[in-house]
Amino acid sequence: MARIVEVPEYEVQDGVRVDPSRTALIIGDMQNDFVTESGTLVVPGAEETIPAIRNLLEQARESGMRVIFIQDTHNDGDPEWEIWGEHCREGCWGWQVVDGLAPSEDEATIRKPRYDAFYGTGLEHMLRLWDVDTLIICSTVANICVHYTASSAAMRWFNVIVPRDCISSFNDFDMEASLSQTATLLGEVTSSENIHIGVPETEEIYMSKLEEAATRERGGS
Amino acid sequence: MARIVEVPEYEVQDGVRVDPSRTALIIGDMQNDFVTESGTLVVPGAEETIPAIRNLLEQARESGMRVIFIQDTHNDGDPEWEIWGEHCREGCWGWQVVDGLAPSEDEATIRKPRYDAFYGTGLEHMLRLWDVDTLIICSTVANICVHYTASSAAMRWFNVIVPRDCISSFNDFDMEASLSQTATLLGEVTSSENIHIGVPETEEIYMSKLEEAATRERGGS
Amino acid sequence: MARIVEVPEYEVQDGVRVDPSRTALIIGDMQNDFVTESGTLVVPGAEETIPAIRNLLEQARESGMRVIFIQDTHNDGDPEWEIWGEHCREGCWGWQVVDGLAPSEDEATIRKPRYDAFYGTGLEHMLRLWDVDTLIICSTVANICVHYTASSAAMRWFNVIVPRDCISSFNDFDMEASLSQTATLLGEVTSSENIHIGVPETEEIYMSKLEEAATRERGGS
Amino acid sequence: MARIVEVPEYEVQDGVRVDPSRTALIIGDMQNDFVTESGTLVVPGAEETIPAIRNLLEQARESGMRVIFIQDTHNDGDPEWEIWGEHCREGCWGWQVVDGLAPSEDEATIRKPRYDAFYGTGLEHMLRLWDVDTLIICSTVANICVHYTASSAAMRWFNVIVPRDCISSFNDFDMEASLSQTATLLGEVTSSENIHIGVPETEEIYMSKLEEAATRERGGS
Repeated sequence: MARIVEVPEYEVQDGVRVDPSRTALIIGDMQNDFVTESGTLVVPGAEETIPAIRNLLEQARESGMRVIFIQDTHNDGDPEWEIWGEHCREGCWGWQVVDGLAPSEDEATIRKPRYDAFYGTGLEHMLRLWDVDTLIICSTVANICVHYTASSAAMRWFNVIVPRDCISSFNDFDMEASLSQTATLLGEVTSSENIHIGVPETEEIYMSKLEEAATRERGGS
Repeated sequence: MARIVEVPEYEVQDGVRVDPSRTALIIGDMQNDFVTESGTLVVPGAEETIPAIRNLLEQARESGMRVIFIQDTHNDGDPEWEIWGEHCREGCWGWQVVDGLAPSEDEATIRKPRYDAFYGTGLEHMLRLWDVDTLIICSTVANICVHYTASSAAMRWFNVIVPRDCISSFNDFDMEASLSQTATLLGEVTSSENIHIGVPETEEIYMSKLEEAATRERGGS
Repeated sequence: MARIVEVPEYEVQDGVRVDPSRTALIIGDMQNDFVTESGTLVVPGAEETIPAIRNLLEQARESGMRVIFIQDTHNDGDPEWEIWGEHCREGCWGWQVVDGLAPSEDEATIRKPRYDAFYGTGLEHMLRLWDVDTLIICSTVANICVHYTASSAAMRWFNVIVPRDCISSFNDFDMEASLSQTATLLGEVTSSENIHIGVPETEEIYMSKLEEAATRERGGS
Repeated sequence: MARIVEVPEYEVQDGVRVDPSRTALIIGDMQNDFVTESGTLVVPGAEETIPAIRNLLEQARESGMRVIFIQDTHNDGDPEWEIWGEHCREGCWGWQVVDGLAPSEDEATIRKPRYDAFYGTGLEHMLRLWDVDTLIICSTVANICVHYTASSAAMRWFNVIVPRDCISSFNDFDMEASLSQTATLLGEVTSSENIHIGVPETEEIYMSKLEEAATRERGGS
């Protein structure tokens, strides 16, 4: 009696170019409890996303692009543990970012209390401080941390780029729901090898709806 | 070549009881441009949700439950018009709440700049002021205004109740994505006739994860 | 037995230049209840600030600078009325902006529930949308709406400019407290005739701490 | 040529009673850089507030009252260092809470990027989670961290209590400005020995403007 639905077509970009001085790579919830075999709440496929994320991480580091690590963070009495069981207890092994993606000492880490990395954190402040307008979101779970972080970013008109080989989910429906919403409403879906970092003189840089509007406005006034 | 996916099973509640003194009925984006035939961005099925929403509205008014009308609100230069075309221009007919659900003079109306009714508005302030902890969300579009308002409410641990006959969407996938996320992550999915307003002495009132946790905590300290 | 204190010296700028394409003029709480003789909560000196504010308003309109009117907005049951008595009831005469500063039809107006114009409103969203980084704040009361709006702006690293002839207060101490905090912690204090709108080619534009830092960072990386 | 002003009279409460299950003790910015002799930005008088704060801390721990430690937190490139010089570098000695007030392992600590402890942090989320409605703020500097945290709390209608022997400032004017604003606009000023923790059966508990309004509203509807 399983119900099935048709997935509406959505666009997957075959090339997205970003300016490293205006972009941040967000690596979210890639913590042992979600990713490593003995974690308490392992997401299928999360471990397999590590190489693609690491590849982007290395490119970001080389190009001087900002990197922000997000850590889901809970303590005793947190009602999330009623729903999901204990996970990501502050300071413990399960809370740490997986070895394969460990932050360097001078990279930013942010602790978040809920699914959305903008909620109850200094993420927006940090992005404004750095004059970042574009986020590449690599995270798990596709329809939870990825999705609600992407949607909060899009509400604020940040450009959102989600490489689908850098996210993971509990089932296909949740993955499609996240990608479809992102591609249709929030930003761009692509794959990690199609993200090009750097600004060649002869190519057009990605311009957001917001920048287009601002450009038009200024030209007109 | 249409892709299909299986919808994971999610729970649809066959009875949800709410305390009218702690609950607000949110009627969102039921504006002419989204709902009425000659609107600029009509959502299929939105008009058919009016009777079920009106029924809840009448029960809310009778019981003294708070009602908040949300109006999507845009002006010249808004980048949303790049995406969706012009809609909900502040003050115009298309921006007004449909006749069948018109707010009375003493009911709260909130203007929102983006999909999420919490973002850039006084909604949370109003809910805290009124000591409301539960939201019944009747709105369109299921996977946009409904979903991002529900998710922002859930981040803050408000109880979220979405009656599925009071929301509408552009296609089945979007509806299922919204309901599945809500039932699994954010709150309760039910139908409008299964929402019972009032607190009979012999029945247990709905208690949120947050309240359960708070109750346990206090008992323990 | 009146206590007196020495006011620490603070800087009053004798010339501040702003780029009209990056600046917004904030006219806050200049509503009948606070300003006009028969209002319910008249601030001494508020009415006398109208000409200086109008002068800036006219310059802003001529130069294409953004203008945002803020309206303190309350309804029945608002606890602010316990403290201040009834004032600024939504939609009423006392809530309207004074005639001398009436917004034109295409100028933005924002309703705020509390002292701080950033709190529970779409102000930040609007400023980001418009790529504004500098605020000129003309408002009343100096140590309430002016101060808490200026501080919220400064937390977000907006440049804050307060022309002291465009603000008013209940007593000298409150005025000095507001100006001293602004000049020392939040931004620039000046007078309206010392604000120069426009960007001459040969002059340096005001650069915020944030921009200085961003410039240095980029140069260094 | 020093200017002097008269301080308007404000109320200093000679007795404030709080319910430990609804109150949080906020210990803010009591970090080595602000408090300890060899810190980089020592506030005169901050060290002398330690015994009074410790006394409240001990009472809070005994009564089961929540305690939240706030740590001002900066890293390279932060524009605050342009204004104040380097201070509170994340993880360093100057960033740590002073020994005399060290948090125990299970007490909450929050890192804040700016003066206001609500801005860019999970403080509000934490307070809502714990059903706290009253804050006792012990912090430095009186007119900076204390004041902007108190004002953000008051915007949200939290009850604010500031014991004046638990705060410190660079000069008398700043102290009076902070206390005057707090007593007049934001909450209650008292001294630490006049804060009574616990709820005797025969005494009335402190009821906020918000609660009064809510009580009235419910009675009336």
